[in-house]
Amino acid sequence: MSTFSRTLKNNINEVVKKVLDGDVRTIARLITLIEDGSFEIADILAKLHTYTGKAHIIGITGPPGVGKSCLIDKLIREYRKKGLSVGVLAIDPTSPFTGGALLGDRIRMKEHSTDSGVFIRSMGSRGSLGGLSKATGYAVKVLDASGKDIVIIETVGAGQTQVDIIKYAHTVVLVLMPKIGDEIQAMKTGIYEIGDIFVVNKADQENADQAVREIEEFVEYEYERLKERGVHPIWKKPVIKTVAVKGEGINKLVEEIEKHKNFLIESKIMEKLKIEKSKSEVLEVLSQKIYEHILRKTGTDEEFKSILHKVASGEVDPYSAANLLLKKFILNWEA
Amino acid sequence: MSTFSRTLKNNINEVVKKVLDGDVRTIARLITLIEDGSFEIADILAKLHTYTGKAHIIGITGPPGVGKSCLIDKLIREYRKKGLSVGVLAIDPTSPFTGGALLGDRIRMKEHSTDSGVFIRSMGSRGSLGGLSKATGYAVKVLDASGKDIVIIETVGAGQTQVDIIKYAHTVVLVLMPKIGDEIQAMKTGIYEIGDIFVVNKADQENADQAVREIEEFVEYEYERLKERGVHPIWKKPVIKTVAVKGEGINKLVEEIEKHKNFLIESKIMEKLKIEKSKSEVLEVLSQKIYEHILRKTGTDEEFKSILHKVASGEVDPYSAANLLLKKFILNWEA
Repeated sequence: MSTFSRTLKNNINEVVKKVLDGDVRTIARLITLIEDGSFEIADILAKLHTYTGKAHIIGITGPPGVGKSCLIDKLIREYRKKGLSVGVLAIDPTSPFTGGALLGDRIRMKEHSTDSGVFIRSMGSRGSLGGLSKATGYAVKVLDASGKDIVIIETVGAGQTQVDIIKYAHTVVLVLMPKIGDEIQAMKTGIYEIGDIFVVNKADQENADQAVREIEEFVEYEYERLKERGVHPIWKKPVIKTVAVKGEGINKLVEEIEKHKNFLIESKIMEKLKIEKSKSEVLEVLSQKIYEHILRKTGTDEEFKSILHKVASGEVDPYSAANLLLKKFILNWEA
Repeated sequence: MSTFSRTLKNNINEVVKKVLDGDVRTIARLITLIEDGSFEIADILAKLHTYTGKAHIIGITGPPGVGKSCLIDKLIREYRKKGLSVGVLAIDPTSPFTGGALLGDRIRMKEHSTDSGVFIRSMGSRGSLGGLSKATGYAVKVLDASGKDIVIIETVGAGQTQVDIIKYAHTVVLVLMPKIGDEIQAMKTGIYEIGDIFVVNKADQENADQAVREIEEFVEYEYERLKERGVHPIWKKPVIKTVAVKGEGINKLVEEIEKHKNFLIESKIMEKLKIEKSKSEVLEVLSQKIYEHILRKTGTDEEFKSILHKVASGEVDPYSAANLLLKKFILNWEA
């Protein structure tokens, strides 16, 4: 057990206080524990929960190489100018093999490291306990409780883990660039659907207008389809051109993020989102607790061992085995 | 519901028979249902379970660009020469964005498509229900039941999803190449630890011997550490040089895979692996069933709704909420 783990165990209120004060070292250590899948974090997350719900959570995703990190760098400056504090979680589900790219980004973002209003952290698949998606959710909670006005989640790609991660965001910005038309064609529209705001970055390259038009066609199509289905109100997804390296279009992006936030609040969708998020959190804790209960109960049980041997030899299938065990262990459930 | 879903529902024994006969279309459709996270597959997987346990399952992993697909292509030829049937699952957790690479590989492997003793299939993150890792486990089960002597699981990279996937393999082949020394240095040794056999492919490039030496140093270090801990017997991991494009070293690789298989059987580690796998399968089905039960019970429950509102507003934390609900729903559990 690390020194910090011990501090956490014995002085949980002190750690809570430090997080609420925005203490960078405490926040960083807590996120490391989360990343390691440490069991010790449940108590502190429970305590921090009461202080969450204030941050606006922005997801930024898109294919590699479109300039997401540069865009985030400029977004941070813009928010800092407005006096807002910012937390960034750069999530790389494919690490360690492809860890290099994000490492570079991290170094680039170091220029904000002397600014106490900015907290930047990369997260990869360190621990095997619990998924990266779950860990991201917890880290967002810590940054939210620490008083960050804006929390940015950056993910690369759009595999399942990334889609799971981006669900924690209130506003999802999908970053694309010109000349990746073919790739976009090959993508499932599911990827488009996760975006609330589209950014065509590197818009000083040729074909930028064509890229914008293609996305706008999708936006129009999706809008009409939702209207037909009677959905109301519908957020009309904006398509923005940016040249992040020159800082162009960043103002507009911040403006649209703000508009989307207001849309969520006024339409009461934000409230529903928060209840949905609470539901999945509670159900997740629930199943984790039940799973641990069964693991404890079965650990020393002879019948369980004998059933496992039968499953291994192909005599009994896992489904029938589970039914047998449910009857045995759950009827005797003591909470 | 698709035609195949209906057939599956009404004529499950017929579908089972077709899988056991190795019918390619039935197997392909079943894997599509698995990929979609369809609930209808549980019954057939239960029935197929009895016919599994005969295939040797080989995991092939490593960074992109080391020549895994070419190596697999040559492995297939070698096994076919020996009269063994082969199933290949090429898993790409990062699709759809990076789906291109594997698509190319799939086309390359098409030359085996007229051979009924070979079944090749790519799998990505199609459905959101259930993870890709779980889907891979089910697909392996189907191929095993279909009578394939060898099942190869190919994964790219070494993120968490990939490590989860490779766990289904009895023998893990980690493919590397010369001149990626720096990347390897940056990798956690955890990646090395998952390999049972190391392949340095493209071994006609310079620095191949140096790469082999570096890996052998790790193997030696790990071996000594295990010996100190009293582990017995220990598999001494071989490091093989191959030039897959020229077919060099493939014989040797097949030989080492066979040796590793025999080691697993003679040391009774294979038996333990199968029991461990059964355990995680049973526990997974168990927690899934409990989760579904709770979801059903809570769906219409007023108290549950009211607790969720309190969690959303920060009044109650998810952990306390879960404890309340456990007491309420599990004590009334009827299987």
